[in-house]
Amino acid sequence: MSHVYLVGAGPGDPELLTVKALSLLRRADVVLHDALISPEILALISDEANVIDVGKRCGATLLTQEEINALLVYHAQNAATVVRLKGGDPTIFGRVGEEISALRHAGISYEIVPGITSALAGAAAAGISLTDRRFASSLVFATAHRGSGSEAVEWDRLVSSQSTLVIYMPGRNQAHLAEQIMTAGLDPNTPCAVISRAGRTDQAVFLTAISNLVKAVDLPAPSLLIVGRCAGELASANQIQQCLEAQFPANLEALTY
Amino acid sequence: MSHVYLVGAGPGDPELLTVKALSLLRRADVVLHDALISPEILALISDEANVIDVGKRCGATLLTQEEINALLVYHAQNAATVVRLKGGDPTIFGRVGEEISALRHAGISYEIVPGITSALAGAAAAGISLTDRRFASSLVFATAHRGSGSEAVEWDRLVSSQSTLVIYMPGRNQAHLAEQIMTAGLDPNTPCAVISRAGRTDQAVFLTAISNLVKAVDLPAPSLLIVGRCAGELASANQIQQCLEAQFPANLEALTY
Repeated sequence: MSHVYLVGAGPGDPELLTVKALSLLRRADVVLHDALISPEILALISDEANVIDVGKRCGATLLTQEEINALLVYHAQNAATVVRLKGGDPTIFGRVGEEISALRHAGISYEIVPGITSALAGAAAAGISLTDRRFASSLVFATAHRGSGSEAVEWDRLVSSQSTLVIYMPGRNQAHLAEQIMTAGLDPNTPCAVISRAGRTDQAVFLTAISNLVKAVDLPAPSLLIVGRCAGELASANQIQQCLEAQFPANLEALTY
Repeated sequence: MSHVYLVGAGPGDPELLTVKALSLLRRADVVLHDALISPEILALISDEANVIDVGKRCGATLLTQEEINALLVYHAQNAATVVRLKGGDPTIFGRVGEEISALRHAGISYEIVPGITSALAGAAAAGISLTDRRFASSLVFATAHRGSGSEAVEWDRLVSSQSTLVIYMPGRNQAHLAEQIMTAGLDPNTPCAVISRAGRTDQAVFLTAISNLVKAVDLPAPSLLIVGRCAGELASANQIQQCLEAQFPANLEALTY
């Protein structure tokens, strides 16, 4: 019987893997990975390993969660070192809970190896301190759509001038999202940053106010939205402006605060 | 003029450093680090580097934030590669915002290198999925005391049965903290996990219900509190129970949910 490592791959840059994740990829017998793992990271896996893409692209399911669980248990029972590789951190919006339940049910031991979640990579890319004590005392992570698909997000509960709000997978309907956040009570002038492909070589950052989010172009996925006064700190940062202009010249929004 | 790297050291285990952080520690000319960086990580710094402990222990300030900012700017102006090393991730409860402001004011370029923040290390140590879609749709990070010291934490705003709440630096008065959280409306039977020294060799996990938190022993700092139904998933996990008993035999609380 083997041991399963549930490993966070971070945002995509191989340099943002943990030392432990890198070492596990190099000695794994089997790697089951999500669709959004970068090619640079997949290239680090041992040539001898059995590498299986269990990824599910948005709206076009390849394997069900139950099928992934079954594959994970099967390989754990037949190989020495099994790595389940997930984008970002396994414990944040990664459905690792269901895989843990399946492993426990089958009596298989497991270990979670944390990774750099998108919020941290996005904040680093944009040069934003998420809990800058001058602007925020708490930090909220949410998604724009519920996993189950049936329930609406309770923005009233998540939005506050005292918090920084990070929205994973904000989706393409930014106008609707901005409207919901403002309806929930957030000042329309609250700064926000859209970070596209954080921690990858083609990352881009777009700064604006929440009321202008509708004007943000549709940046390449995966993207992340950071809403809060901490993002406004960038307004006066010439070096960031220059960096943004270089990366993304045509669409840099004038800052309105 | 040099470039300053604001680097997350993660929770303490050198294997949970990112590949980039490790590489920077090995080639830095100057490293300014916090007090809580583990000896194992400090041992990775190049022998040629000038290593300065700017750490401030709770309640006994060694250097003011302004003094740290001044040191950072001074070294950036006089050395090639300067690393500012912070526990966890620099953008979460790390006061990096004030250091960024000082660097920008002095015209010094900087880069944030994200790290594994305590919440991720704690969740991994306890085997908890923070946003398990069966139990939570959002995740809140807060501290038990405000940085400024003057304002009370608005627990009403942070507590919900739909969220997982992670409290950094919960402090020693767990009875008071539990009381505040229950007064804010959280069910007293809500599971919670205290994780002490997550990601270090002597990590320990204590599971109970929020109403029993008062009975949790005073575990060694740094500790972290995870409150939410996701923690209850551990109740039926024999392997975790055994692991806990082995780590922490005398104080494993019976689970009440």
